[in-house]
Amino acid sequence: MVSAKRRATTLRDATREAAKEVLEANLELVRRGLVLYTFENVNGISRSDGLVAIKPSCVPYESMKAGDIVITDLTGHIVEGSLRPSSDLATHLELYKAFPSIGGVSHTHSEFATSWAQARKPIPCFGTTHADYFHGAVPVTDAMSSEAIASDYEKNTGSAIIRTFDDLDYEKVPGVLVANHGPFTCGCGRSCTQRGNSGTRSACCLPYDCN
Amino acid sequence: MVSAKRRATTLRDATREAAKEVLEANLELVRRGLVLYTFENVNGISRSDGLVAIKPSCVPYESMKAGDIVITDLTGHIVEGSLRPSSDLATHLELYKAFPSIGGVSHTHSEFATSWAQARKPIPCFGTTHADYFHGAVPVTDAMSSEAIASDYEKNTGSAIIRTFDDLDYEKVPGVLVANHGPFTCGCGRSCTQRGNSGTRSACCLPYDCN
Amino acid sequence: MVSAKRRATTLRDATREAAKEVLEANLELVRRGLVLYTFENVNGISRSDGLVAIKPSCVPYESMKAGDIVITDLTGHIVEGSLRPSSDLATHLELYKAFPSIGGVSHTHSEFATSWAQARKPIPCFGTTHADYFHGAVPVTDAMSSEAIASDYEKNTGSAIIRTFDDLDYEKVPGVLVANHGPFTCGCGRSCTQRGNSGTRSACCLPYDCN
Amino acid sequence: MVSAKRRATTLRDATREAAKEVLEANLELVRRGLVLYTFENVNGISRSDGLVAIKPSCVPYESMKAGDIVITDLTGHIVEGSLRPSSDLATHLELYKAFPSIGGVSHTHSEFATSWAQARKPIPCFGTTHADYFHGAVPVTDAMSSEAIASDYEKNTGSAIIRTFDDLDYEKVPGVLVANHGPFTCGCGRSCTQRGNSGTRSACCLPYDCN
Repeated sequence: MVSAKRRATTLRDATREAAKEVLEANLELVRRGLVLYTFENVNGISRSDGLVAIKPSCVPYESMKAGDIVITDLTGHIVEGSLRPSSDLATHLELYKAFPSIGGVSHTHSEFATSWAQARKPIPCFGTTHADYFHGAVPVTDAMSSEAIASDYEKNTGSAIIRTFDDLDYEKVPGVLVANHGPFTCGCGRSCTQRGNSGTRSACCLPYDCN
Repeated sequence: MVSAKRRATTLRDATREAAKEVLEANLELVRRGLVLYTFENVNGISRSDGLVAIKPSCVPYESMKAGDIVITDLTGHIVEGSLRPSSDLATHLELYKAFPSIGGVSHTHSEFATSWAQARKPIPCFGTTHADYFHGAVPVTDAMSSEAIASDYEKNTGSAIIRTFDDLDYEKVPGVLVANHGPFTCGCGRSCTQRGNSGTRSACCLPYDCN
Repeated sequence: MVSAKRRATTLRDATREAAKEVLEANLELVRRGLVLYTFENVNGISRSDGLVAIKPSCVPYESMKAGDIVITDLTGHIVEGSLRPSSDLATHLELYKAFPSIGGVSHTHSEFATSWAQARKPIPCFGTTHADYFHGAVPVTDAMSSEAIASDYEKNTGSAIIRTFDDLDYEKVPGVLVANHGPFTCGCGRSCTQRGNSGTRSACCLPYDCN
Repeated sequence: MVSAKRRATTLRDATREAAKEVLEANLELVRRGLVLYTFENVNGISRSDGLVAIKPSCVPYESMKAGDIVITDLTGHIVEGSLRPSSDLATHLELYKAFPSIGGVSHTHSEFATSWAQARKPIPCFGTTHADYFHGAVPVTDAMSSEAIASDYEKNTGSAIIRTFDDLDYEKVPGVLVANHGPFTCGCGRSCTQRGNSGTRSACCLPYDCN
């Protein structure tokens, strides 16, 4: 049995590590030109601890520190951190619960993917890099109802994503366009060969996304 | 009663603060890639003093200092500053007088918004960020008559904008496309949650505006 | 009468000044994102001396110095400089002889203006900045014949441009699209209010040219 | 006769030189904005040694050193280097064997050229720079069969390119679009007048490729 003190130490270590990785992944989005103000974000999950590390809301990237990253459990309860977590947290928690092998979620408003999302069209697969990552079209969710938008928008966004994967294998299709909104992507691995770093790389590889 | 000397000091302090904020907002436009030469600008108003801080005309951003920002009253009379104010001042004064709660006005020629303005089409609302900021389409003014262009172009631009808001709530629709010209945006608040910083952020969030 | 020695000194001074200005204007093109390798250039003329300062061929901008700028007379004879002048010189000399008040010529392959040039369509005037600079459409030359391309391409490019201005006032229309090629622009003044710096600014203000 | 020791020394010198050039050409792709993560690459061949210098797989450009460049012979056997060569090596070896005068091969996924490749359309020649480099349309390969994709994709990509040049002179047409993939370009010379630096410059000059 691990003592309470030992566990707390381990938890803090895992927390610090997750916070650093999430900070780095967010700064990577900035470097790739996929960020406007503080609207985008990446978060990650430590499956062994059941803890999620997420970007705080409204903190500019220029001054963001690892200590600003908020740590929550899978119910959204804050375990560590004094700032307010990104409003996308409710969406991401739905995804972590529905898709047990994903390690991170990324959300951007990159120009071209957002155009497809706003047109409510899946992005057809025309190229090799697209095929390597998505194994077919990038799917698009159904448009959300006015009720779903007005009642609990972020959580309902998660539900809309999950419904889209009823007939898709989320481990083979690492991203989706939320109709009228933009792309959400996930990552299942960390190494270069596994392709993916908390979803960041998939986000950057969405067809037509990068300059 | 505040003594004349005390008032002058207060005024200079407010002036300096407004000048610094307007300088910073202009440099933010530069950082966001929305500026070409010196054609764009942001200005701000101190409602308590009734003073407007505006970018000088033809001064490159690279060398612009807070002391270069021109301070005028609501009639356009220069209160402080030795440089010529931006020619857009006449437009902005109309807006400050018509819309009492706006704290700043921004004008850019950002590529996509300008395309819509030149096509004289409102930008339809297809996405969430657009909806969060504009609560509907980004409106477009009527095209100005040749007489309005030839006689007092800047002031008449202000009038065209004001007419567009006859049936719109300017506190909910923080920007407009001037037909054949480009976007003008306003900001009513300063904090992150209030969204807006002298109109800069709204300008940057115009759909399709940012890379 | 000015002594030969005095004249030589004056000439060298004017030469040095022109070289510095032309170098700076070329670097401005680079800063504006209008340059790919060494294909673009700006040159300038000292009307009082009848001397042209032009970018050397194939010298990367990163290492270009004022001393690399080549000085020629209006027949293309090199007066100062050890490098080969840009191959566009023959085009520019035609323009200096045909349009006596221009002080500089700029040639870029900026993306959007080049698209219009390749489509052989004038750019219609839809906006205020365009109107301020061009007072109407940006004209396009006739397509050159195979003979004109094969025999003396650069000089014939100048002739094609000149023919386009048969019915246009070159002081009001500071640029033209060469069909199947790209934009050439001229500047008649140096101060901010006169708009123009050896054509650079006009080049940058071509509609749709700048990000 | 050259002694074994002398030959080894010469080989190492040539190897080092080729590695440096290939590193520099790859970094040039980065500077030109043609690189996303590690998917693109340039390699070069020393014809006198029969050795190919190629970028390693999955090494970020930020930390890539000349010592990371992998040296192989024309069968793909690694002669020097401890990292895994780019998976494109098999394609490039086919090209080096089929086209004896090329000195380098470059592969990017630049946005516009990739769009044409995915549309499986040759890029028609509308402009002078395009004409200077390609002397006509940029050709496109036939689409590869599912069998060719599944069996030995990289080598079969080389074969598809070679078939495209059955009726074309590869010394006059320095690049091709691989259908559903992207552009591959070659360089036959090194000096500025010969235009080309292991294919990098041709890649950058593909019409519509560069901002």
